[in-house]
Amino acid sequence: MIKKVGENTIKFTLPPKIASGYAIVGPKEGLSPLSSYFDYILKNDAFNEKTYEKAERKMLEQAISGAIDKANLLSTDIDILLSGDLLNQIISASFSARQLQTSFIGLFGACSTMTEALAVGACIIDGGCADKVACATSSHFSTAERQFRYPLELGCQRPPTSQWTVTGAGCTILSRDGEGHNITHATFGRVIDYGINDMNNMGAAMAPAAADTLKNLFKDTNTTPSDYDLIVTGDLGKLGSELLVDLLENYGYKMGENYCDCGQMIYSSSQRTFMGGSGCGCSASVINSYVLSKLDSGDYKKIIIMSTGALVSTTSTQQGETIPGIAHALVIEKGK
Amino acid sequence: MIKKVGENTIKFTLPPKIASGYAIVGPKEGLSPLSSYFDYILKNDAFNEKTYEKAERKMLEQAISGAIDKANLLSTDIDILLSGDLLNQIISASFSARQLQTSFIGLFGACSTMTEALAVGACIIDGGCADKVACATSSHFSTAERQFRYPLELGCQRPPTSQWTVTGAGCTILSRDGEGHNITHATFGRVIDYGINDMNNMGAAMAPAAADTLKNLFKDTNTTPSDYDLIVTGDLGKLGSELLVDLLENYGYKMGENYCDCGQMIYSSSQRTFMGGSGCGCSASVINSYVLSKLDSGDYKKIIIMSTGALVSTTSTQQGETIPGIAHALVIEKGK
Repeated sequence: MIKKVGENTIKFTLPPKIASGYAIVGPKEGLSPLSSYFDYILKNDAFNEKTYEKAERKMLEQAISGAIDKANLLSTDIDILLSGDLLNQIISASFSARQLQTSFIGLFGACSTMTEALAVGACIIDGGCADKVACATSSHFSTAERQFRYPLELGCQRPPTSQWTVTGAGCTILSRDGEGHNITHATFGRVIDYGINDMNNMGAAMAPAAADTLKNLFKDTNTTPSDYDLIVTGDLGKLGSELLVDLLENYGYKMGENYCDCGQMIYSSSQRTFMGGSGCGCSASVINSYVLSKLDSGDYKKIIIMSTGALVSTTSTQQGETIPGIAHALVIEKGK
Repeated sequence: MIKKVGENTIKFTLPPKIASGYAIVGPKEGLSPLSSYFDYILKNDAFNEKTYEKAERKMLEQAISGAIDKANLLSTDIDILLSGDLLNQIISASFSARQLQTSFIGLFGACSTMTEALAVGACIIDGGCADKVACATSSHFSTAERQFRYPLELGCQRPPTSQWTVTGAGCTILSRDGEGHNITHATFGRVIDYGINDMNNMGAAMAPAAADTLKNLFKDTNTTPSDYDLIVTGDLGKLGSELLVDLLENYGYKMGENYCDCGQMIYSSSQRTFMGGSGCGCSASVINSYVLSKLDSGDYKKIIIMSTGALVSTTSTQQGETIPGIAHALVIEKGK
């Protein structure tokens, strides 16, 4: 049976269950308004490792093993790890997979990786190709900054449209059966490019793709923003979120009070991150802590989560290319 | 119904069909013993673009549109593009997806990406989550060499264990129904690391992962190498292939005359590529030309294809890390 509804959305017949979620964040994120929701807060952002890259990998490994523990499983119960990250050749994910020793599907969707992994994982579970999968991603301020922008030691001034890459990782365990919240729909996004070429304005680069995916989801499922208790985007930040609301209004969808963005939630305004947080770890840590706990408590019954990615690369930027965006969305309904 | 057989293998209940394959290669590869099988051979390896990165992307775009044409489809018939490549942030794939404007799942599995995409695509189609998907990847000698090793202008001497990154791209269209060869099984690989740290010995880095995946496939399906008309690996090259045969013998499986490696097939010995070809484009171009045509002609009835990836990154190497490998395998049976 084909599970496609409309043009771009998949409706799962046996909704995969969210068995657990685990979030680990850095010290700065630990001072955020959401701090009480995180499973683990680093005391130092090198996580007692020699390099920030090794620290990022250690966070990701802890997120994966933490989520497996919280689901009362063993690592051998996991059929497939789906993971990716921002570092060249997704080394955080690949080396975490070396540690875990399950089958591994490496993904790259920039900061959209959390929902990309969940959507692919849900397809694999719903189709009966796996029983339990782990979906995980990470980012680290210091590894991303020095890979994509400037050496940390340079102490560059940050422009007002910039965002702060979240030091954090998150992992969700999806299961074919058992208890947990249900992933009922997934909408894979398209790569959309409105010609933004400013490495320090990721929100504007991602907003058109976010609007495209959300518009497709609403259309395909014949719903509107008010049908959901929460619509949460990954890391559009303040500017990107405003652009998303504007763009969706052009498509005929009015976003309301139920809309929020992980990038805006993860830092308080006094933390001077300008437009807010970004990075794979942004939506990964917020979804796997605050969002899941609000589903647990019954504050939310039906929500949309959508991580958003800016497909920025120094290799393409050096060739004069613009920065396209992508966003993948999932509908989650509270489980019993 | 759970489709898992054994520990690591998926048996598809409605085997996804290979609707078409398209292969495009560079001028050097056009001189290979397989040249008559390729759909398109570049006259110059810059493909009339200003940079090799843009040339690689153009090849990938042509492979995707060529495969869609050969399947008598329109690009709007494709539900999802699954693609990745070797370049940082998989820019060849992301920017090709921007061109195609279908839903996009970005993957990274180094040179294992062709069978990674096919295996994920097959799960998605078999589960009913899509009707038609395009699985594609590319590599380019000049983009890979300068990203992973040395500037081209330096003219470095190549050590005898080195391989030559294939300039090429391939795309396979998978379909839920219609005619075509059947993907009956998929085995997702694990990340295996035997401690190789030589950027110029990819074959040795990948062989342990290749042996692990193949051993799992044989065990899970209760078959032996002699049950297949062809077992073809991605780009182990001469040394890596010999290591694979040795390692499998330790596991109790004797490889025979039916075993070959795309990396060894794609260049003639007079082309001085030492151990043979490598890169995502190696298995992508050989599988989507020679291998599919031998299934078409009936020379092969039941085969295993397995692309192999070395998870090498300058970021991890600079931190003293070794090079783990991964390999994903598929069983294909000739269609009517």
